[in-house]
Amino acid sequence: MTATGKGAATRDSIVDRAYALASSSGLESLSIGPLAQAVGMSKSGVFAHFGSREDLQLAVLDAAGQRFLAHVLLPALKVRRGLPRLRAIMAAWFDWARQTAGGCVLLAAANEYDDRPGVLRDRVQQHEIRWRSDLARAVQLAVDSGELLSDTDPMQVAFELYGLALVVHHDAGLTGLEAAVERGQRALDRLMHSYSPNS
Amino acid sequence: MTATGKGAATRDSIVDRAYALASSSGLESLSIGPLAQAVGMSKSGVFAHFGSREDLQLAVLDAAGQRFLAHVLLPALKVRRGLPRLRAIMAAWFDWARQTAGGCVLLAAANEYDDRPGVLRDRVQQHEIRWRSDLARAVQLAVDSGELLSDTDPMQVAFELYGLALVVHHDAGLTGLEAAVERGQRALDRLMHSYSPNS
Repeated sequence: MTATGKGAATRDSIVDRAYALASSSGLESLSIGPLAQAVGMSKSGVFAHFGSREDLQLAVLDAAGQRFLAHVLLPALKVRRGLPRLRAIMAAWFDWARQTAGGCVLLAAANEYDDRPGVLRDRVQQHEIRWRSDLARAVQLAVDSGELLSDTDPMQVAFELYGLALVVHHDAGLTGLEAAVERGQRALDRLMHSYSPNS
Repeated sequence: MTATGKGAATRDSIVDRAYALASSSGLESLSIGPLAQAVGMSKSGVFAHFGSREDLQLAVLDAAGQRFLAHVLLPALKVRRGLPRLRAIMAAWFDWARQTAGGCVLLAAANEYDDRPGVLRDRVQQHEIRWRSDLARAVQLAVDSGELLSDTDPMQVAFELYGLALVVHHDAGLTGLEAAVERGQRALDRLMHSYSPNS
């Protein structure tokens, strides 16, 4: 392995560990000292990869965004455009709670930073805006295929789908994920039906 | 004021302050030392009102539940049963984001404790279950009045309404509360319509 390759691998393993810590305690509670200890490095070793705590937090946010897209969006892109793809996205999104044992880093960060202006809040918003527009695009494709009504507002549907994912994840902690996903699926069916030309 | 009355007033003012702290940093980060300082008391003075940090956290949770019900449910009970009351509940719930500057203590606690068994998690769940059943009862009244379809599952509708409140509050941090409430109202209209006998 080249020196650069080894450096990148070390950086990745620091981010992995930081991501796990952020999942259970939030991004704001990340600090270089305990993290260095957890990965068996000196603080200056960690600082060699991240100039500051904020740089590390940004890297963890980006890693969370990548994992989310890899689990929720990418597999669905192989499914036919329109309702099948939209349903594949929602099924994977409901299932996302299973991938994020301690909690979703992105969602927790949205709550942590929404009232704290700064680069972290900006980055959280970038991820949110991008995801909402990916979702709206998937809705638009179902409009284009004639499976949803032509006057459907894709951003409105994306908003409603987001609400379903939030309540499924919320209820997973209350009733267990399976019961919550079942309710989420029923709500999704009704939502799709009410935007359908055949309703 | 009697000695007991004074004690209760002091207890209330400690809970008020603790509630404000928990709104911005969560229930788990509450600690007696900084709280005592914030209310200008000694630690033992605070401990005289709450036997433990956990007792204090439970008192803050209960205060959050009371404030929530006072803002969201009680005013709606003066509105006619059925859809008007359900709409009044939802309008006040959407507006709840305005009452909870730093974030909703109950919602944050649901995320903080859902994977930590103990008395705090149990109390959070009691509040959640009670609120969900209050909401389902308001839905049932709209079924009874014939404004919603007779085969409506009130718990399913309560689940979907919960999702709308979550996404409105989530988006308030992204697009501002007004735009989020507007989307929430449109989603609510569609949801009501799709459960309506006239749809």
